[in-house]
Amino acid sequence: MLQPNIETFLACEAAYEEAEIVLYGAPFDSTTSFRPGARFGPRAIRSESWGLENYSPYQDRDLSDYRIFDAGDQELCFGDPKLALADLEARAGQIADDGKIPFLLGGEHLVTLAPVRALARRYPDLRLIHFDAHTDLREEYLGTPLSHACVIRRCWELLGDGRITQFGIRSGDREEWRWGRDHVKTHPFFVDMDALEETVRAIGEKPVYVTVDLDVLDPSVFPGTGTPEPGGVSFDELRRAVTYLGERARIVGCDVNELAPMLDATGASTAAACKLVREMLLAIAGRKR
Amino acid sequence: MLQPNIETFLACEAAYEEAEIVLYGAPFDSTTSFRPGARFGPRAIRSESWGLENYSPYQDRDLSDYRIFDAGDQELCFGDPKLALADLEARAGQIADDGKIPFLLGGEHLVTLAPVRALARRYPDLRLIHFDAHTDLREEYLGTPLSHACVIRRCWELLGDGRITQFGIRSGDREEWRWGRDHVKTHPFFVDMDALEETVRAIGEKPVYVTVDLDVLDPSVFPGTGTPEPGGVSFDELRRAVTYLGERARIVGCDVNELAPMLDATGASTAAACKLVREMLLAIAGRKR
Amino acid sequence: MLQPNIETFLACEAAYEEAEIVLYGAPFDSTTSFRPGARFGPRAIRSESWGLENYSPYQDRDLSDYRIFDAGDQELCFGDPKLALADLEARAGQIADDGKIPFLLGGEHLVTLAPVRALARRYPDLRLIHFDAHTDLREEYLGTPLSHACVIRRCWELLGDGRITQFGIRSGDREEWRWGRDHVKTHPFFVDMDALEETVRAIGEKPVYVTVDLDVLDPSVFPGTGTPEPGGVSFDELRRAVTYLGERARIVGCDVNELAPMLDATGASTAAACKLVREMLLAIAGRKR
Amino acid sequence: MLQPNIETFLACEAAYEEAEIVLYGAPFDSTTSFRPGARFGPRAIRSESWGLENYSPYQDRDLSDYRIFDAGDQELCFGDPKLALADLEARAGQIADDGKIPFLLGGEHLVTLAPVRALARRYPDLRLIHFDAHTDLREEYLGTPLSHACVIRRCWELLGDGRITQFGIRSGDREEWRWGRDHVKTHPFFVDMDALEETVRAIGEKPVYVTVDLDVLDPSVFPGTGTPEPGGVSFDELRRAVTYLGERARIVGCDVNELAPMLDATGASTAAACKLVREMLLAIAGRKR
Amino acid sequence: MLQPNIETFLACEAAYEEAEIVLYGAPFDSTTSFRPGARFGPRAIRSESWGLENYSPYQDRDLSDYRIFDAGDQELCFGDPKLALADLEARAGQIADDGKIPFLLGGEHLVTLAPVRALARRYPDLRLIHFDAHTDLREEYLGTPLSHACVIRRCWELLGDGRITQFGIRSGDREEWRWGRDHVKTHPFFVDMDALEETVRAIGEKPVYVTVDLDVLDPSVFPGTGTPEPGGVSFDELRRAVTYLGERARIVGCDVNELAPMLDATGASTAAACKLVREMLLAIAGRKR
Amino acid sequence: MLQPNIETFLACEAAYEEAEIVLYGAPFDSTTSFRPGARFGPRAIRSESWGLENYSPYQDRDLSDYRIFDAGDQELCFGDPKLALADLEARAGQIADDGKIPFLLGGEHLVTLAPVRALARRYPDLRLIHFDAHTDLREEYLGTPLSHACVIRRCWELLGDGRITQFGIRSGDREEWRWGRDHVKTHPFFVDMDALEETVRAIGEKPVYVTVDLDVLDPSVFPGTGTPEPGGVSFDELRRAVTYLGERARIVGCDVNELAPMLDATGASTAAACKLVREMLLAIAGRKR
Repeated sequence: MLQPNIETFLACEAAYEEAEIVLYGAPFDSTTSFRPGARFGPRAIRSESWGLENYSPYQDRDLSDYRIFDAGDQELCFGDPKLALADLEARAGQIADDGKIPFLLGGEHLVTLAPVRALARRYPDLRLIHFDAHTDLREEYLGTPLSHACVIRRCWELLGDGRITQFGIRSGDREEWRWGRDHVKTHPFFVDMDALEETVRAIGEKPVYVTVDLDVLDPSVFPGTGTPEPGGVSFDELRRAVTYLGERARIVGCDVNELAPMLDATGASTAAACKLVREMLLAIAGRKR
Repeated sequence: MLQPNIETFLACEAAYEEAEIVLYGAPFDSTTSFRPGARFGPRAIRSESWGLENYSPYQDRDLSDYRIFDAGDQELCFGDPKLALADLEARAGQIADDGKIPFLLGGEHLVTLAPVRALARRYPDLRLIHFDAHTDLREEYLGTPLSHACVIRRCWELLGDGRITQFGIRSGDREEWRWGRDHVKTHPFFVDMDALEETVRAIGEKPVYVTVDLDVLDPSVFPGTGTPEPGGVSFDELRRAVTYLGERARIVGCDVNELAPMLDATGASTAAACKLVREMLLAIAGRKR
Repeated sequence: MLQPNIETFLACEAAYEEAEIVLYGAPFDSTTSFRPGARFGPRAIRSESWGLENYSPYQDRDLSDYRIFDAGDQELCFGDPKLALADLEARAGQIADDGKIPFLLGGEHLVTLAPVRALARRYPDLRLIHFDAHTDLREEYLGTPLSHACVIRRCWELLGDGRITQFGIRSGDREEWRWGRDHVKTHPFFVDMDALEETVRAIGEKPVYVTVDLDVLDPSVFPGTGTPEPGGVSFDELRRAVTYLGERARIVGCDVNELAPMLDATGASTAAACKLVREMLLAIAGRKR
Repeated sequence: MLQPNIETFLACEAAYEEAEIVLYGAPFDSTTSFRPGARFGPRAIRSESWGLENYSPYQDRDLSDYRIFDAGDQELCFGDPKLALADLEARAGQIADDGKIPFLLGGEHLVTLAPVRALARRYPDLRLIHFDAHTDLREEYLGTPLSHACVIRRCWELLGDGRITQFGIRSGDREEWRWGRDHVKTHPFFVDMDALEETVRAIGEKPVYVTVDLDVLDPSVFPGTGTPEPGGVSFDELRRAVTYLGERARIVGCDVNELAPMLDATGASTAAACKLVREMLLAIAGRKR
Repeated sequence: MLQPNIETFLACEAAYEEAEIVLYGAPFDSTTSFRPGARFGPRAIRSESWGLENYSPYQDRDLSDYRIFDAGDQELCFGDPKLALADLEARAGQIADDGKIPFLLGGEHLVTLAPVRALARRYPDLRLIHFDAHTDLREEYLGTPLSHACVIRRCWELLGDGRITQFGIRSGDREEWRWGRDHVKTHPFFVDMDALEETVRAIGEKPVYVTVDLDVLDPSVFPGTGTPEPGGVSFDELRRAVTYLGERARIVGCDVNELAPMLDATGASTAAACKLVREMLLAIAGRKR
Repeated sequence: MLQPNIETFLACEAAYEEAEIVLYGAPFDSTTSFRPGARFGPRAIRSESWGLENYSPYQDRDLSDYRIFDAGDQELCFGDPKLALADLEARAGQIADDGKIPFLLGGEHLVTLAPVRALARRYPDLRLIHFDAHTDLREEYLGTPLSHACVIRRCWELLGDGRITQFGIRSGDREEWRWGRDHVKTHPFFVDMDALEETVRAIGEKPVYVTVDLDVLDPSVFPGTGTPEPGGVSFDELRRAVTYLGERARIVGCDVNELAPMLDATGASTAAACKLVREMLLAIAGRKR
């Protein structure tokens, strides 16, 4: 008897019940104001992952040794971000309640707010580590507080001062940079590994959420995104940072977002996103062993 | 002394005060649920129009003989369609109050609701003539009533039964087609010129709003749109229809929408949009003389 | 509990056991000698089908009323067409043995040989109706008899003279045209509906296999294919022909092939392929009722 | 011993001395003011021709039966059209002096002036038949008389009133259309076969130059050109016209120009250009037999 | 009353009279002999600049604090570089005479000759600092001295030996490299900051013109240019160099050229060009305070 | 008399008899299982090479000083790799027998097996130096041993343990990495110049074949390939390595492969391939002097 057509990220074919980590996709970019298309990110990451191997020579680990489940994409409302966020938050909460780590594939960066809401309720001392080219600290944008450009500010409202650490930031308006100085810790321009290690040491075993806006990468490495910002970090720089976090920090949720495949004419950005997801999965799953 | 850089559609360089027709752009596609990018439509129509001539050999008319003003694009909220529609409605209303014809360049099709709201208030017996591949008659879509897929249903709530005539429709869910039978007049699959002439005769001098979703065109002619639907109308078929309307009907507002330049790899769709806008402008302006 | 990520063509979500028709994909183009990429055809048809509706206003039928199963893509050997064809033939045979109609999504045109082999064994009086720009009647091509350019010649070896009818052919070398005159019935340049109706009448209730090389369409409608051949048929011409066949002939298997999404810069070709598959599914399933 | 790498249009592999027709390429578009790239046209026509067959089922003729030579592209000056035209004129003159028909692959349309200069000197009663979307009758453009937009006006200066017949024209400024009425014969919008046959009858055995600006085709068929103009002719319409001319008129030179492969995202425009060149070659060569 | 549609680079919205710096665009690439399209560079830089912020975290400066005017693009002759250069020179001269700094957005590199002519006349001791992959020192190219490949040689004829310093050069024919050794100072392969600082020190307060051919950047960073030359400089390397120049040298004119947006499939090159222009504007404007 | 149209890599225009090095193209990618298109690599390298100069400022050498012949592409079987390899092996053998160095332009990586077969027979102590992102050490792939993913394993069967040295490898399945530890020398992740120099010293004057799978480059530099693997080497790193080998090792054959121009949206990958080929040609030819 023939089976239906199941499509997952690489070898992430565990049953939900036994899974340690759960991938879930947010095909949403309704507040993207410049170049859209991040809605197609999770689907592209899933289908193009098969150009990679399960095995990482960097970590000497293989995805087939771990139990990961890929829940596919949720159908989300276009036109009302509140509805979309509520649906995503429910899914993240369910995964966490089932004792698994929710790993979100965006979508635009606003989607990060959904799992942070779900997890901040469950982990009152949650920390956020944020890789991005942009501060995302606006109070509101184009008249609405629920915008990709405001997402870290919304997270700060949930987490408070001193809980958010940013890396790679190189764009924002003057007001964002000023406000940020008093409320979050920003390491600009590149990924300062010393600062990252210091941050992880200070956090210890407190729960951490990691959000990766892929535009932290230099546009030469990752052009396929809505708002490319020249002067960014290299692939290996980011790969090392997220591997370090996966292996050392107690990650209770994470996301990788802002791949816009329509803007990735050659597929190189998608390949970079896939490989980062693989390395993060392996590092997080490896730590749990 | 040097002048600032003004960019308009072709020769639409009249002063606002003296203009008969006002072009205004809606760079908005926040509810587009399939392939986005219509936000860039008005800008592309404006910049690529310069590949055309001012003169139409079809009508033996020249844009430089008429007074048309191009107001450029409004900055609209991404993430809250209510706000965007309110801003667009205000602009359409102002143009109408100043005794000019508002000509909207979309954007996704939802934007049509804004000028129809503005004009239905001013013209209680307003008629709507609608060219499209899709019925757009859903009660709601993905949880929201303010969606591109519901826009003609929303217009019907303002205008009532028997006021809306559709041409070229070839897609919709079963429920939409059923509902439509009782509330609007649908001429499916192609542009039936006999039916169009009959419609215009029946309307007489009542005010008409014309909305053109460019995906009514066959995808061979107009691939650069979010939801291409094979089996559509030819360029000349649509050109003749809108020219006929411009010359014979009392148009009090109109729009051309759903060009998504990112999906128009060759520029041919943009050229088709530009030429239709030119022909509509010439026919409407010519009738007023 | 979350479900795994199942991806099918539109609403083709029946269980295998209850299905009347089974879609199966052949991601193969190893013998394509000009522009490759048809391997990605079935995946694109599946994922882009969601831009369509389940409902066809042409037939007043809805996919959700029928039982269709989508088996996804087989993993096929690149580098040895014999192996790939054997795997595909086994699948087609299994589906036929289970009393269902195998509906193949190619891939390059060589894949047609696999189901024709499976079905010719089961139906000794099988007929083949062939839509294509190219004759595909070469004895061999670039040194091998198993080539896309030879597939109908290979089918003829199984079916014999007078069993194959071609429509829309407008390319081939001089020798192919000469050979064809004696062995197959060729209706060149367009889809002659009179000839098609005559063919169907003559066949009566004998079993028919229908193969659609999408390059029979004009490149304006369907540029996204390896060997576009100008001067082809329109979308509606082909849609009417395959609908007629689905409703009138006893189809025991069929395929749609040669969509190469990498060459379909705008997505319009993929949309055309999707809509044809929907219309064929509805017509075949409708006849069975 | 290995041979050097020779690239020609299809089977155009005769030696120069024995050739009846000589293809020569003009990789030039220095005066193109809108979207450039026609410089790459001849190279693309040559390399993509191999997707076609040598044999035409329309004419039942095969290129391998005729003696045609492909001289490749000349290296032409960018920055001084006078120099480029002089080099091209010399080549056209040499070919004509050697008793062969010069068949030019452009390039932008200005290149037509070079062979017309060469042939008008040799054939004082030369006629010009012109397929185009644009009149190309400007006195000057952007300050220079040597522009693609003026090329037919420049030809008229050589040939005089009543010698030029245009087909398919649908764009030009008001002044061009007015001037044209008194000096050339324009058949607008489509290819009027009755008018073409009448024209050929009137010309009789006088020498004819045929120039095909491929943008005469509808942009759905031929988007890959600098200035696509919606509402054009179909492929078969143009194919029939040029075949008719090749078979009935005494063509002493011809050209096909304005393919811009960078703008031809799918390759369909290039395929159309290749097929037209093949049909023209076969018709002209066939008549000479 | 509605305003006309003004499009400028970011916040460069000062009135001309009060401006310190004037942006002006040269949509010209008529002598480009390889891959064209730089004509669209200034328009793309202007429209895509809105993906950036006004504020630079590198310099802690904000464009809204300075008075910059954007004059838009001049309409230039295609087909006669002499005419185009004359029009550009007039504009540069007018800006300089009005006491403002002309900042040119190209266009192909030949356009640099126009402001250098205008300024060399006004500043007899003018120096030129040149960033490029190519020497551009040919005596003539394809038969003409007015070519992008000769522009620095033409500048040298105005400035003389020892006045021109080049950085990043990695391509040229053997003769250019030899000639260059005697007449200009070339720092090949990368941007040698020590050499740049030494150059600036030696120049002191003498007037400097800075020309940036963006192909000095590595093609990974900046593929969107006519002649990409592998092995180039990084974005931050060039950003630091031009910022240093803006802050330390007495710049009396400058340009950024050779962005060809048609070749920039992802938009990353355009983003790089925009950010460099912003940083140069801020550094130059900041020094004047 | 006009000459036929000869197309070669840059100035590689020697007669075959006098040539020291012979370029030959393998337009083959029939076993490519992910993204196809490497078949078009050699043609693109040849035609785009003209964007470069003959002269290398890195080596101060000029191609016009050496005798190199370009044999163009062979027509190879699609659908039977055995046939294609046999034809390629014959050509490589002929070139070697004529005392020249065969320099292969691929094509997918499987083509390397053909010259290695030809040369291993002629040079029993042949060494292989291999640049790649992937190990290519599989015993079989998708059911066949003749696959791009197995090519170095097939070479090892000819050469034996200790004869193959790999650089830049960063992908493979776990089994390949394990097997490789015992049979080949792998320097992973980057090009370790110390290890390369040590390798060359150990080899001394023994004959060496160098195979460059261009995907060893980082996808930012070289996205235009079937299986981009993030985290690769820079252009200058690879340029230095192959120049070192050309100047120091006794190269008896080499290849550069896996450029897929359809995936190289901007042309930057093709430019990188061209420049590497030029530098390798100059280094190898320079050593022979």
